[in-house]
Amino acid sequence: MKTRVTLAFAALLATAAFAADPLPSWNDTASKKAIVAFVEKVTKEGSADFVPPAERIATFDNDGTLWSEQPVYFQFFFAIDRVKAMAPQHPEWKEKEPFASLLKGDMKGVMASGEKGLFTLVMTTHAGMTTAEFEKTVADWIATARHPKTGKLFTAMVFQPMLELLAYLRANGFKTFIVSGGGIEFMRPWAEKAYGIPPEQIVGSSGGLKYELRDGTPVLVKTPELVLNDDKEGKPVGIQRHIGRRPIAAFGNSDGDFQMIEWTTSGPGARFGLIVHHTDAEREYAYDRDSHIGKLDKGLDEGPKRGWTIVDMKTDWNTIYPPSSK
Amino acid sequence: MKTRVTLAFAALLATAAFAADPLPSWNDTASKKAIVAFVEKVTKEGSADFVPPAERIATFDNDGTLWSEQPVYFQFFFAIDRVKAMAPQHPEWKEKEPFASLLKGDMKGVMASGEKGLFTLVMTTHAGMTTAEFEKTVADWIATARHPKTGKLFTAMVFQPMLELLAYLRANGFKTFIVSGGGIEFMRPWAEKAYGIPPEQIVGSSGGLKYELRDGTPVLVKTPELVLNDDKEGKPVGIQRHIGRRPIAAFGNSDGDFQMIEWTTSGPGARFGLIVHHTDAEREYAYDRDSHIGKLDKGLDEGPKRGWTIVDMKTDWNTIYPPSSK
Repeated sequence: MKTRVTLAFAALLATAAFAADPLPSWNDTASKKAIVAFVEKVTKEGSADFVPPAERIATFDNDGTLWSEQPVYFQFFFAIDRVKAMAPQHPEWKEKEPFASLLKGDMKGVMASGEKGLFTLVMTTHAGMTTAEFEKTVADWIATARHPKTGKLFTAMVFQPMLELLAYLRANGFKTFIVSGGGIEFMRPWAEKAYGIPPEQIVGSSGGLKYELRDGTPVLVKTPELVLNDDKEGKPVGIQRHIGRRPIAAFGNSDGDFQMIEWTTSGPGARFGLIVHHTDAEREYAYDRDSHIGKLDKGLDEGPKRGWTIVDMKTDWNTIYPPSSK
Repeated sequence: MKTRVTLAFAALLATAAFAADPLPSWNDTASKKAIVAFVEKVTKEGSADFVPPAERIATFDNDGTLWSEQPVYFQFFFAIDRVKAMAPQHPEWKEKEPFASLLKGDMKGVMASGEKGLFTLVMTTHAGMTTAEFEKTVADWIATARHPKTGKLFTAMVFQPMLELLAYLRANGFKTFIVSGGGIEFMRPWAEKAYGIPPEQIVGSSGGLKYELRDGTPVLVKTPELVLNDDKEGKPVGIQRHIGRRPIAAFGNSDGDFQMIEWTTSGPGARFGLIVHHTDAEREYAYDRDSHIGKLDKGLDEGPKRGWTIVDMKTDWNTIYPPSSK
């Protein structure tokens, strides 16, 4: 009986602590107040702003919003490691850009190939595998690969304040989705563990798939065409295609998220748009208008005019990464 | 206090009744026994066949599986009504097939245009609208249009035994999805009310979408290209793209569902495949190998060999449509 009472008391304390502050890594600034005010008004039954649970859809960009994205998108590190692993089977890559530069360790040469070159790298290293093979390759890589600057596992570079925000929204009846320019099949193997977001709630850039029988066993093979470029104007398209209704809240960090937040906040009723502004060179990175990754220019000018919340990472967040993460 | 006790007693009775028979419209034949045996084994904690709730994905074809599909797919009736409504703005249709035949009421002429003609009809009448306009058009139509033979609303021609099956699976922790050759945007406006399946759990054939600003207001416009033909080999592709994991149970009625059931039942662990065989000319329709709609040939031969359950509508179902439906 004593154990029972103790447990009940502990549960009560935990609930009280949660009720007191569901967002402990957020400082008590305007950003946090705006989030809490929005959630309270859409969940208050009988209020003019009440939204039924089924319509509480919240969409999150991934790179730069839920985890870091510098010095390059983490999926690009994956592609580099894949090129190195696959190089012995592709002697022709020694003469072919952007592979040649990459294999020589000349990252400037790789970057000189531009977006087209990066696209070639990603498509070449992702296509041709079955979805099961690709999933295993990603899962193995994400379990061991580490970030060049922090030395952390990439999944340890998720943002603690955003994890709290995801949990807070879900505790208030929201369904949380990722809507990312990153590859859909690259995120799915680890996002459920990292963010609590299941594969069916992940929208991302998508290549082709082909169903075929191999020795009588069905497989899905990844093909090199692009079925959805889930960035900029592609984000509302991805949202409609996968979710089929307009979110009431959207969270991003770059101009690639502008249309998603615009689409979300243009609907009727209470709406919420938020941009994470990377202002903390010491604890993370500081970049915006001139960045080659996660450029934020239009959003900085237009966002505040449209009533979107702009998170100043340096002053709004008291913690960046989960404390125990290595 | 008396009220409380009575309520508690009523709740107990309701639970007992549900526990006694969650599938009252299914006769006590092999099909029902196979369904119940599968659900019991995958939900029994500690059993070798136990499947965690997150992986209890069940996919359902729509036309012929969840509602009737004769004499033609119901979406085709919608397209016909759209052509008639749009004809005054398209005088050129009087000279152009398949529009000309349709406007003269010559359905044989329309059918003579084949799949390509039907595709033209659907694309012409669906593309160019915004998603909001299209949603309203579908919602208005489905609320009033009636089936030529039964005189019922189309949503009254859903199968009562399948409604019970959907509810039974959900009560056992399954997440239910539609995976249909029909148009994704055609199903979403009414499927939540009809089946309890929300828009984000509906996969279907999909046209293109384009994000644009009209007088400063963002809209999504439907474009005529085909992004996913969610039929046959396209069904496992649609499943992977939208759901991102393999279902453990799949339900269909035609050879268009063959690959979905094959993909589902080829995974490791306990799996369930089911085909609804339309055998009841009196209460619904009887058709299979030679039907122009919902052809079932390969599935009838291969299904039983692969351990799939074949529902004989005439003997397995004691009710077809919801009793009160008009």
